[in-house]
Amino acid sequence: MFRLLKPESRLYWKHFDMSAQFDPRDPDYATRVTRSFAEQAIMQTLGASLVEVTPGRVEIELPYARSLTQQDGFIHAGVSATILDSACGYAAFSLMPPAARVLTIEFKINLLAPAAGTCFRAIGQVRKPGRSVFVAEGELFAERDAGHRLIATMSATLMAVMSND
Amino acid sequence: MFRLLKPESRLYWKHFDMSAQFDPRDPDYATRVTRSFAEQAIMQTLGASLVEVTPGRVEIELPYARSLTQQDGFIHAGVSATILDSACGYAAFSLMPPAARVLTIEFKINLLAPAAGTCFRAIGQVRKPGRSVFVAEGELFAERDAGHRLIATMSATLMAVMSND
Amino acid sequence: MFRLLKPESRLYWKHFDMSAQFDPRDPDYATRVTRSFAEQAIMQTLGASLVEVTPGRVEIELPYARSLTQQDGFIHAGVSATILDSACGYAAFSLMPPAARVLTIEFKINLLAPAAGTCFRAIGQVRKPGRSVFVAEGELFAERDAGHRLIATMSATLMAVMSND
Amino acid sequence: MFRLLKPESRLYWKHFDMSAQFDPRDPDYATRVTRSFAEQAIMQTLGASLVEVTPGRVEIELPYARSLTQQDGFIHAGVSATILDSACGYAAFSLMPPAARVLTIEFKINLLAPAAGTCFRAIGQVRKPGRSVFVAEGELFAERDAGHRLIATMSATLMAVMSND
Repeated sequence: MFRLLKPESRLYWKHFDMSAQFDPRDPDYATRVTRSFAEQAIMQTLGASLVEVTPGRVEIELPYARSLTQQDGFIHAGVSATILDSACGYAAFSLMPPAARVLTIEFKINLLAPAAGTCFRAIGQVRKPGRSVFVAEGELFAERDAGHRLIATMSATLMAVMSND
Repeated sequence: MFRLLKPESRLYWKHFDMSAQFDPRDPDYATRVTRSFAEQAIMQTLGASLVEVTPGRVEIELPYARSLTQQDGFIHAGVSATILDSACGYAAFSLMPPAARVLTIEFKINLLAPAAGTCFRAIGQVRKPGRSVFVAEGELFAERDAGHRLIATMSATLMAVMSND
Repeated sequence: MFRLLKPESRLYWKHFDMSAQFDPRDPDYATRVTRSFAEQAIMQTLGASLVEVTPGRVEIELPYARSLTQQDGFIHAGVSATILDSACGYAAFSLMPPAARVLTIEFKINLLAPAAGTCFRAIGQVRKPGRSVFVAEGELFAERDAGHRLIATMSATLMAVMSND
Repeated sequence: MFRLLKPESRLYWKHFDMSAQFDPRDPDYATRVTRSFAEQAIMQTLGASLVEVTPGRVEIELPYARSLTQQDGFIHAGVSATILDSACGYAAFSLMPPAARVLTIEFKINLLAPAAGTCFRAIGQVRKPGRSVFVAEGELFAERDAGHRLIATMSATLMAVMSND
């Protein structure tokens, strides 16, 4: 029986892990993430910017642009996936040692609502750091009508690749 | 710019939606879930039991049994997936109208750690209810050494099928 | 016992379904797909073009461009996902009735190799058409060194939304 | 332009990789797979048996049993996932060196039709072998009314773990 879980289960769920403080192996993690992000040409093409980096957690913002839409005028699901993937990837990258590169092994995205709004924010957060394999989750919010709404979720597996591998 | 999100972003993330109170369309949702769960013969075969049902959220518990293991003595990933799928499915089912049946369209599971422990708890929670399509997330915890540990996460898409469909 | 499957299993696997000829409900399916694709502004932004449309199957081509890359100079995984999602979505759309719109419910992508090459081709193919829910699979090939190589696979769930829904 | 792909694209798609002959690193791969499968207690609990092992490809068969069902009398999606996961895992394991253990990192399953039938066959096939990370795909067929039908597809990521890791 789960003695501990029962009483506080509703608080426990999700919150436990989210409050986890990850210790970065590289004190310069933020510089490393920022520099790598600047090298992702696609981010400039989309108009996305890096707005927050903490150990194991990254936020990316993307203003709406007509050039990013699918046939109904919403942001294309692939664009949502692109900034979520970068958010998850850099969340993992922030916890990797200095010599590591990050590769996405796979991700899955659930699209909860059409990507309508004036601005979008992708939040990537590590759920399980590993020696070589990291699991991260992402959430995408749309700003609309002075509020914000969850429009997509992602789970991703990332790999740390050492330069001498 | 996300005016609202910035200050409370760390609290906001995950918590917002988790605290969402879903209004069940059927006041007898718990009876309906409990009765349907009792008809899942596989749950008895595995030894799983339904331990909590609230609107949009279901918990299932499974004690360790040697008969459920893979080659290294851990609970097989498919067994973890089975109770997570039922937890997610019934979380969605709890919000469906009385005449609906629930079908799983797809799910994905990330295995964060080997399923070692004395007892396992699968929590399924709806993230996006819909008219016919629901998205739920699941988390699997293992009880071990007087603590509990997150060992798997799931995202699932469920469908409400009306009897006259 | 699977009497039929055994002898020809190796042929059977995958080939069976791939050779399936789908009957489009709309004889003008190709026009409808082509027109909708032209309205996806993101495709022009990326430089992607529609190169083949048959019932339940769509191919999209994307030349390499520096503006689409991640930090190591490869095409960003999200860009790969974008053209695969459109290929899967239009594969499903080609089998939908004239009044339907198509929405992506979810997709998952496995990245098998870095997206290096001079040109990329995304192939989307319906595996299971439905009344409202379609399942499609995608494969992404890179042209490189006079050959081509599978670099990513996708599975996607799409929904037909009727205009009067 | 994809010069090579165009003419034979329909043949090319899927067939190319499926005909790939993988060279097992361990000549005793079949013995190793068979022995490990026999240690999966869950397979006996479900009544599943290993029916074919070739390099990079494994088939598992499961007769219908009432004890494996969900509320509508179909085989539970988690049971389908269990045999597909083992099929994918052993497909990868067959290509690993003798000292390796296999772990599932993640899998996703799409359920195309209810699991109704007298017997089920899960086919797992490696799509991308790696040094430590393998990607495999699975397909689940149901035998019914003297025919067989595709009822689920899986994509899975597996990891080779060396004993001295």
